[in-house]
Amino acid sequence: MVGGSCLSETLTIVRDPVHGFIKLNKTEMAIVGSRPFQRLRYIRQLALTHLVYPGAEHSRFAHSLGVMNFATRIFDTLLEKNRDLLDWDQKRVEKNRQLLRLAALLHDVGHAPFSHASEELVGGKDHEPISSRIMGTKPICDLLDGFEKVGITAKDVVEFFSAESIDPDVAFLREIYSGEIDADKLDYLLRDSLYTGVHYGRFDFERLINSLILIADPNTGNNIVAVEFGGLHALEGLVLARYFMFTQVYFHKIRRAFDHHLVEFLKRYVVRYPKPISEYLEWDDNRVFALLQKHRKNDDNARRILERKPFKEAFTTDEHINDEQRTRFHWMLKEVQNEFKGVSMFCDTTEKSPHKFEEVGTYLMSKTTEKPTLVLRVSEIIRNLRKIEQYRIFVGESHRKKVHEFCTDFWLTQGKKSD
Amino acid sequence: MVGGSCLSETLTIVRDPVHGFIKLNKTEMAIVGSRPFQRLRYIRQLALTHLVYPGAEHSRFAHSLGVMNFATRIFDTLLEKNRDLLDWDQKRVEKNRQLLRLAALLHDVGHAPFSHASEELVGGKDHEPISSRIMGTKPICDLLDGFEKVGITAKDVVEFFSAESIDPDVAFLREIYSGEIDADKLDYLLRDSLYTGVHYGRFDFERLINSLILIADPNTGNNIVAVEFGGLHALEGLVLARYFMFTQVYFHKIRRAFDHHLVEFLKRYVVRYPKPISEYLEWDDNRVFALLQKHRKNDDNARRILERKPFKEAFTTDEHINDEQRTRFHWMLKEVQNEFKGVSMFCDTTEKSPHKFEEVGTYLMSKTTEKPTLVLRVSEIIRNLRKIEQYRIFVGESHRKKVHEFCTDFWLTQGKKSD
Amino acid sequence: MVGGSCLSETLTIVRDPVHGFIKLNKTEMAIVGSRPFQRLRYIRQLALTHLVYPGAEHSRFAHSLGVMNFATRIFDTLLEKNRDLLDWDQKRVEKNRQLLRLAALLHDVGHAPFSHASEELVGGKDHEPISSRIMGTKPICDLLDGFEKVGITAKDVVEFFSAESIDPDVAFLREIYSGEIDADKLDYLLRDSLYTGVHYGRFDFERLINSLILIADPNTGNNIVAVEFGGLHALEGLVLARYFMFTQVYFHKIRRAFDHHLVEFLKRYVVRYPKPISEYLEWDDNRVFALLQKHRKNDDNARRILERKPFKEAFTTDEHINDEQRTRFHWMLKEVQNEFKGVSMFCDTTEKSPHKFEEVGTYLMSKTTEKPTLVLRVSEIIRNLRKIEQYRIFVGESHRKKVHEFCTDFWLTQGKKSD
Amino acid sequence: MVGGSCLSETLTIVRDPVHGFIKLNKTEMAIVGSRPFQRLRYIRQLALTHLVYPGAEHSRFAHSLGVMNFATRIFDTLLEKNRDLLDWDQKRVEKNRQLLRLAALLHDVGHAPFSHASEELVGGKDHEPISSRIMGTKPICDLLDGFEKVGITAKDVVEFFSAESIDPDVAFLREIYSGEIDADKLDYLLRDSLYTGVHYGRFDFERLINSLILIADPNTGNNIVAVEFGGLHALEGLVLARYFMFTQVYFHKIRRAFDHHLVEFLKRYVVRYPKPISEYLEWDDNRVFALLQKHRKNDDNARRILERKPFKEAFTTDEHINDEQRTRFHWMLKEVQNEFKGVSMFCDTTEKSPHKFEEVGTYLMSKTTEKPTLVLRVSEIIRNLRKIEQYRIFVGESHRKKVHEFCTDFWLTQGKKSD
Repeated sequence: MVGGSCLSETLTIVRDPVHGFIKLNKTEMAIVGSRPFQRLRYIRQLALTHLVYPGAEHSRFAHSLGVMNFATRIFDTLLEKNRDLLDWDQKRVEKNRQLLRLAALLHDVGHAPFSHASEELVGGKDHEPISSRIMGTKPICDLLDGFEKVGITAKDVVEFFSAESIDPDVAFLREIYSGEIDADKLDYLLRDSLYTGVHYGRFDFERLINSLILIADPNTGNNIVAVEFGGLHALEGLVLARYFMFTQVYFHKIRRAFDHHLVEFLKRYVVRYPKPISEYLEWDDNRVFALLQKHRKNDDNARRILERKPFKEAFTTDEHINDEQRTRFHWMLKEVQNEFKGVSMFCDTTEKSPHKFEEVGTYLMSKTTEKPTLVLRVSEIIRNLRKIEQYRIFVGESHRKKVHEFCTDFWLTQGKKSD
Repeated sequence: MVGGSCLSETLTIVRDPVHGFIKLNKTEMAIVGSRPFQRLRYIRQLALTHLVYPGAEHSRFAHSLGVMNFATRIFDTLLEKNRDLLDWDQKRVEKNRQLLRLAALLHDVGHAPFSHASEELVGGKDHEPISSRIMGTKPICDLLDGFEKVGITAKDVVEFFSAESIDPDVAFLREIYSGEIDADKLDYLLRDSLYTGVHYGRFDFERLINSLILIADPNTGNNIVAVEFGGLHALEGLVLARYFMFTQVYFHKIRRAFDHHLVEFLKRYVVRYPKPISEYLEWDDNRVFALLQKHRKNDDNARRILERKPFKEAFTTDEHINDEQRTRFHWMLKEVQNEFKGVSMFCDTTEKSPHKFEEVGTYLMSKTTEKPTLVLRVSEIIRNLRKIEQYRIFVGESHRKKVHEFCTDFWLTQGKKSD
Repeated sequence: MVGGSCLSETLTIVRDPVHGFIKLNKTEMAIVGSRPFQRLRYIRQLALTHLVYPGAEHSRFAHSLGVMNFATRIFDTLLEKNRDLLDWDQKRVEKNRQLLRLAALLHDVGHAPFSHASEELVGGKDHEPISSRIMGTKPICDLLDGFEKVGITAKDVVEFFSAESIDPDVAFLREIYSGEIDADKLDYLLRDSLYTGVHYGRFDFERLINSLILIADPNTGNNIVAVEFGGLHALEGLVLARYFMFTQVYFHKIRRAFDHHLVEFLKRYVVRYPKPISEYLEWDDNRVFALLQKHRKNDDNARRILERKPFKEAFTTDEHINDEQRTRFHWMLKEVQNEFKGVSMFCDTTEKSPHKFEEVGTYLMSKTTEKPTLVLRVSEIIRNLRKIEQYRIFVGESHRKKVHEFCTDFWLTQGKKSD
Repeated sequence: MVGGSCLSETLTIVRDPVHGFIKLNKTEMAIVGSRPFQRLRYIRQLALTHLVYPGAEHSRFAHSLGVMNFATRIFDTLLEKNRDLLDWDQKRVEKNRQLLRLAALLHDVGHAPFSHASEELVGGKDHEPISSRIMGTKPICDLLDGFEKVGITAKDVVEFFSAESIDPDVAFLREIYSGEIDADKLDYLLRDSLYTGVHYGRFDFERLINSLILIADPNTGNNIVAVEFGGLHALEGLVLARYFMFTQVYFHKIRRAFDHHLVEFLKRYVVRYPKPISEYLEWDDNRVFALLQKHRKNDDNARRILERKPFKEAFTTDEHINDEQRTRFHWMLKEVQNEFKGVSMFCDTTEKSPHKFEEVGTYLMSKTTEKPTLVLRVSEIIRNLRKIEQYRIFVGESHRKKVHEFCTDFWLTQGKKSD
């Protein structure tokens, strides 16, 4: 173990199907044992996806351990390779390594029930501000203060996690668990692939981790994470894995239908999750399931979830809609709602960029010049990946056939007339 | 697909991390979609084992599909190899294959919440009589009647499953999903291994399945399932896998503690599950979790489960206790309870035979004589495996050290004085 | 087993790291046992690639069994799904299944030593005409005649393999082992990935196989193999796997250098392989290795191979050269040869289309219209994959640095002047 | 990387199907690139086993890298856990770590063609003395001297490897690559399993490595490697894996027959390998294969190997013969040789202890007393494993049936008469 921070400590070893073994020190274990972290055992990683892929019953708990583990591996790799850029003494190594591990471990602690599916009930944009608040609240903040011997306080972790830290040195550390090539993606792609039983999310993560290096940003001079030339195809593998997982698993039509039923149900019976942390933490999947159960007989969405009778896809566009198709779809949607007045249906929109390399400006080391080049300049595969944008219409089983015919006919003929 | 029963039907393909793909026909899918079967999604295969092995969050749902799939593979293998013993016409093949698939699919449908952990609240010996009752009750019985075209009624399935069928031909079929080398063990060992991330439960199942044959029982002349000589070591592999899974996972000390807390909690707040099937089916893990949550603040067992603070093991015997040790343990138990009056503790006993070959009389084909020999005569490894019998004392964290010292001292010195 | 052709026969089961088990009937085993087929054990699948990826020591032998196995799985899947298009009786099923298995098994039997690396010494375009000649020669032809009970003669196999068969029915069968989505690619990508230890060649082959269907060609009405819509991403996975294996393994710079040294050596000491089949079959890798050994001290190429001292890459273009770059490269090549007169160097060109869908016109079933659409119209990922075309200059270690500098300088400055 | 010896060096990363990645420093790479080490590419790990398990075409080359890698992992684990016993300064850590890596890397460099199969032609007991001589000979010794900066000379490596080093500190280091729980076994069991496609050799190596600790030998006080209690079942897994690999792969009947044919052939045409290292190193599998080829038409053993027509097993005892059976077998052997005078046959004997724990006295930490106990006292499974001792008679195909009948009859009836 590079940082060597744990030499004199007893390590707890946790088994994990993705990582084999994950080691934690005593204070980390105390955090894992705390109530807010244990709650993650009852927040499913992929919401109701197990209704499509039965194996996908895993929770945010093991994922959080996994992100911490991958983050550490990346950190150790960078440290081993970049002693020149990082002339940190042992103390600084230990502190930064521990900061990174804690932020990675706790990054999802604020997740709402069913992960992203019910995020809109949180009131904010996503779960990260809540994670941050939980870190600053008892019992977690007291436990974080337990790292004083390596010079860390709860305040440090919160600032690090919220990107409010002003330490320029460690700016790149945040990239490790929350950048464009990060421990979070590594873990969720491999984990979700394993549990769903699909192959799409697998890629050569060993090679990718081994290809990461630290460079000075050509513009700012700050340390940033880049990829050695030899890791190009492993990086392309990661991007494609993520792209395929979105189209095949995360945006699976049946999963989208259940997400809809779930959100509708929650909007009605929960409205929004409570603001106070202690009350917020009382909410987990089990509690929502109990609520669904309670309303199974009087609420259509609850029944559809528990009896696995989702609305059916009656129409879908391609995964990459163009402007003309977007216009045509909205026209069609109006027509179909008109035609089938009183029939309950909903329109679902999925959008996702396959990467943010443009925005982030990730670099690859050029083979010819041995200087950093933008990934997007080198990789045609990544450059050519188009944004996912797909529109669908869902409707109850009994009307599916008619709506499908109406839409298909409109799409292929009526719609074209406008051309 | 041998039986060929599905040629004209649309098959639904389900992804599974253990099997890759599992195919179901339309009527089977209707059963899977029914409320009683969907409930299995919320019965964890390994109760609270995820509190020890975080990955073990899987349910009885995928396991049930898996048993059906392995049962079918075994059936098809036997059929391909044993056309001589089984001169069944296509119709009979189809009927028996479908019967087997249905019994395998539904064998766990009656499981109580948290699988075996809460079985004692059911009132009977195990979950199988309830599975049988559910098969005979709406909506399942109506769906089973849907197999009339291959000559199957719900009554047939119930009789088959309950071993009340008088058809001598198919007696051996039950062995396939519920014998000593059966689809149930194959699936749970591989599945539990995968999800816990341990290796112990893995064995060469492909080889084992390929080694199964049908023979005429030397005593009764009935068809029974036996193992070809070449499959000996794969069979030993299965027995060892099961043995190791019991000692390492199923009887893990922390898991045992949680089982205890759970049962104590349920005994107090549920007492026993309702008898009427429709009410019984309202109980699943989610409901129990909600109940735990409700009592977290007023019930110690609930708190220990939700905050992951189980009683700790203060003493344990070896995995294979002998008579003298058993006596010594009970003496010690009395002494320790006396010494620590008022201190809450419990004694846990685990017992398991590594196999039932003695009882069942499973045969292997001898290499020299080419005749059936008892497995136990041939395999020294299996013959020498001793029964697991282990006694432990658990106590709250604060008393663990003292109780541990008292017990260890007694065990190593006092206890010996009786020799 | 669908075709059921083997019911009364003893099957031999062969272990394989990719397939688990591969089953062969008695006559197939006789072919496998014959001298020409046993020779494949000593023809390395990836020539001298083990000098780069040490694990890649596998031969054409297991690959041939694997192609037969995948071909059978595809056949059985198509048959199960397409009873409507293929109203073959049991006899016709058996015959066609066996024909396919034999052609797949023997498709590589004519390979020259070191597979493709030494193909140019064969005198023809590739190894297939020789495979065909071997099938028609003793002992193979006699063994093939052993399939008369299912209506097959050696002549049938040769005609089938050589695409000279006039049976319109079975035209599509050839696609199964030698088309654009075929058993050959499936096996070599998975096998080469496993043995090299890279991940690039892995893809969801189970899903892909399950997605194949038979359709009537919209133009000709003939049966052709197409892909169901749900298999689109699995197909993209295959194409990408192949693309990555070419860029990362098959066109690896060190491998290319060894290929060059090997061909140069063979051109000098073997000139060309003998025409008569019996003499041709005397050549395998062992014999070439012995020859290398013999000339280790007097031949530079032999020494470089046996002591692992290949020429080094002094310059390389991108993987996708454009017209301007091609021109510039040839100009540079002339200049560098001029500059380093007397220095031994060579230029290496690699070219590969990532697929032939344009040419072959492979179809995918459209989701909207449920009619066949060209794969290239649907898949942006495949459509955007550019042809690999890469030029490199290799030179001895001692001159590498100077040549590298000369080339890089030329490429980045001089060459640009022409712009 | 613990020892940190490589911080300033460029590491070469080699892909391996068992380990993923193996890293080597520059001087180690020079050794790997040397002619004696490159020769290991042409020494098959499992001799002619590929004639039974087609995938088993791997060589000693990757195995040697793998042993080095596992040895390093064990060393790093022990160092991390046992800072108390090993208060080595950084310099001493680096030196010992490098010594261990070199010995592990080179331990098989003296192997004869076809590994153990042709060892008897070497003239000594095994290949290790030759490995030792090669380390002390150019070019290896010069390369080893290249480690002077960490205080290592070729002499040190030779002494370390030959157990002639008098440094008491490092006595336990040799156990790491050549003890009863060592890097050699770990690698060959996993590698041979992977390449043959069997599962028997797989075990939980991660858990086992993590369970190793250093203790003071209760008798001598010297540092020795022991196993933590929690690693008991992983250790049993290793022992069983090895046991099964011997019975299923290494002692497979067809493999034994080919070993016999090979040794007979070599005894005749090679007699014995030359003593001088430079001449000895000229011999590899390729050279033997070329010799086999040359004599294919005039030598029966050569023909049988190249045409895969081994003698067939006509009789075999159980895997664990007892005294009475041994006597009976020898009596039978005489009788059968008498009866079938002039018929070529041979008797094959295999013997192997499943472990040497008795001899070596390996310790496990007791759970109750927390003191070292002998593994054999704790593990019933290991204690009960019996020595493999099996006798077989092999004969040409044409006489197999008659000899088989004669033997079986004798074994079951005649032989018994003596009882």
